[in-house]
Amino acid sequence: MVLHLDLPQNGYDIILERGAISRAGEYLNLDRRVLIVTDSGVPAQYAESVAKQCKEPTVVTVPEGEGSKCFSMFEMLCRKLLSHNFTRTDCVVAVGGGVVGDLAGFVAASFMRGIDFYNIPTTVLSQVDSSIGGKVAIDLDDVKNIVGAFYQPKRVLIDPDVLSTLPHRQIANGLAEAVKMSLTSDTELFSLFESGEAEKRIDTVIERSLRIKKYVVEQDEKEMGLRRILNFGHTLGHGIEAAEHLHGYYHGECVALGMLPMCAESVRMRLLRVLKLLGLPTEIRGDLEAMLENASHDKKCAGKDISVVWVETPGTCEIRKLPLETWKEQIRTSLSSL
Amino acid sequence: MVLHLDLPQNGYDIILERGAISRAGEYLNLDRRVLIVTDSGVPAQYAESVAKQCKEPTVVTVPEGEGSKCFSMFEMLCRKLLSHNFTRTDCVVAVGGGVVGDLAGFVAASFMRGIDFYNIPTTVLSQVDSSIGGKVAIDLDDVKNIVGAFYQPKRVLIDPDVLSTLPHRQIANGLAEAVKMSLTSDTELFSLFESGEAEKRIDTVIERSLRIKKYVVEQDEKEMGLRRILNFGHTLGHGIEAAEHLHGYYHGECVALGMLPMCAESVRMRLLRVLKLLGLPTEIRGDLEAMLENASHDKKCAGKDISVVWVETPGTCEIRKLPLETWKEQIRTSLSSL
Repeated sequence: MVLHLDLPQNGYDIILERGAISRAGEYLNLDRRVLIVTDSGVPAQYAESVAKQCKEPTVVTVPEGEGSKCFSMFEMLCRKLLSHNFTRTDCVVAVGGGVVGDLAGFVAASFMRGIDFYNIPTTVLSQVDSSIGGKVAIDLDDVKNIVGAFYQPKRVLIDPDVLSTLPHRQIANGLAEAVKMSLTSDTELFSLFESGEAEKRIDTVIERSLRIKKYVVEQDEKEMGLRRILNFGHTLGHGIEAAEHLHGYYHGECVALGMLPMCAESVRMRLLRVLKLLGLPTEIRGDLEAMLENASHDKKCAGKDISVVWVETPGTCEIRKLPLETWKEQIRTSLSSL
Repeated sequence: MVLHLDLPQNGYDIILERGAISRAGEYLNLDRRVLIVTDSGVPAQYAESVAKQCKEPTVVTVPEGEGSKCFSMFEMLCRKLLSHNFTRTDCVVAVGGGVVGDLAGFVAASFMRGIDFYNIPTTVLSQVDSSIGGKVAIDLDDVKNIVGAFYQPKRVLIDPDVLSTLPHRQIANGLAEAVKMSLTSDTELFSLFESGEAEKRIDTVIERSLRIKKYVVEQDEKEMGLRRILNFGHTLGHGIEAAEHLHGYYHGECVALGMLPMCAESVRMRLLRVLKLLGLPTEIRGDLEAMLENASHDKKCAGKDISVVWVETPGTCEIRKLPLETWKEQIRTSLSSL
């Protein structure tokens, strides 16, 4: 299936198809110099399969984990492009999860002020969410995604076959983002999660999530308004990740925890049940106050107020601008009552 | 005088006015957190004057010279924004020449995926050329501007009064870029250079250069076509800069040398006279072959061919795509005949 993301200047196709990686050369222009970025947690066979279809491939495997979204990896990859004589007509391909996509995407966005970028996401999280929309970035001093760009890929290739090699925790991690989208935008998808059938019907979950993401990005490419609904659960979520020094919890697990305080109580109870069905965490370990403090560095925090996404009824949401202290108190209260 | 640069998504005003720096607060929104980036070669009074007009200024002075356009300075400035709790609604102001503008602009482009950027150029070179158009970047391994973005400033403030503190060599350095624009686009401006009156009538030189640059950028924001004419003299020019390890020659001096082989012989003789009038170099010191080799890494070099700008008659130009070797031979021949 092909979904076209329609943008004024740089729209692109998202290919959702089992087995697509082995046919990457049909969908992507690999007849040039290609830097393939993957990480040590991704089965090497996927990058190798893509490399075989390239005219001049260079594969770089960065260490698995958020720690690779750093300035030194960014510089290393830029230097790699330089030393292999990449020109403006060559390209970068990410084969991996959100970390690889964010890092490789920012490299593609910046090298020579932008060369072609293709994304081949290999985790549920990146397939349902992070691989499309053009948000690329690295981290700095435990603050996630603080340095980056809006830079759209030329094409995204989603092959659900690769999910079969993922451990369950990784799958649940990605489904947390799909739960997020269902809560703000798609009651049918939320019902699918409540039915306990989401993992069995993962192609449907991916497609419905992509349709939501596509619509939101088309309306608001650079996060001036509507796109903020994708941040549901993310403000506290990022605070949890930062306070945990980017270790411990996975991103989707942090988002799961971050959503719980940001919805009406009746919704919270239904969400709690869905998270438990998926095996996602529902209680915060660690120092909540440090997490709240870290969350205050979030990009959605302008001055002394913070903009958060609130779900009163599944399938819809609203942006609420709150004083930082009010927001913190809401989190303390709602989490202690679970 | 106000020139409006008209772009589809992000047009902005260029203010050209003597004394404008002391009234920066009237032209720019400084009622917020402001990171002012300047360098050790710029008289401190200019950044201080701007800082006095800001609500929450932070001034960072980087070392003078191309060496500051590096990854470590880029990271340092991002960290500075983070440690001072800058949010999406705050801004960065460059007060200095092209180095400061390119570096600070890339920081503004990347921090939180883009915060407001103002440019206050204080050299002839940055006033006539580099401060407008949105090309921001840092260098890597002696290759200039290899990592960066197209990111337009919100406003540019040009105050010719600041040029009075510049040494003559710096003024000539900047005028080289204006000579470049006159040769490709403005015979009247080229006549002004031939008359020997350019320095006396510098406000006119700045205004005419800005009008050329404005037109070119409006037609071609992201350097897909017409904008390449601004690269007249720059391919060899960058090669000279890189081979000299970014020391020795100034940028405009390299461009002056880079233009000489890229025009018809009769034009070359007139250009030679203009360069001598301005006190710009007309003979290459150093290893020409190394310079040519370095130039081959240029962004305009796609594969085995190179696109160069050629001036057959002053006021017009054409893009020529040449095999690398042909281009090198043209340079060797024309320079040895001077």
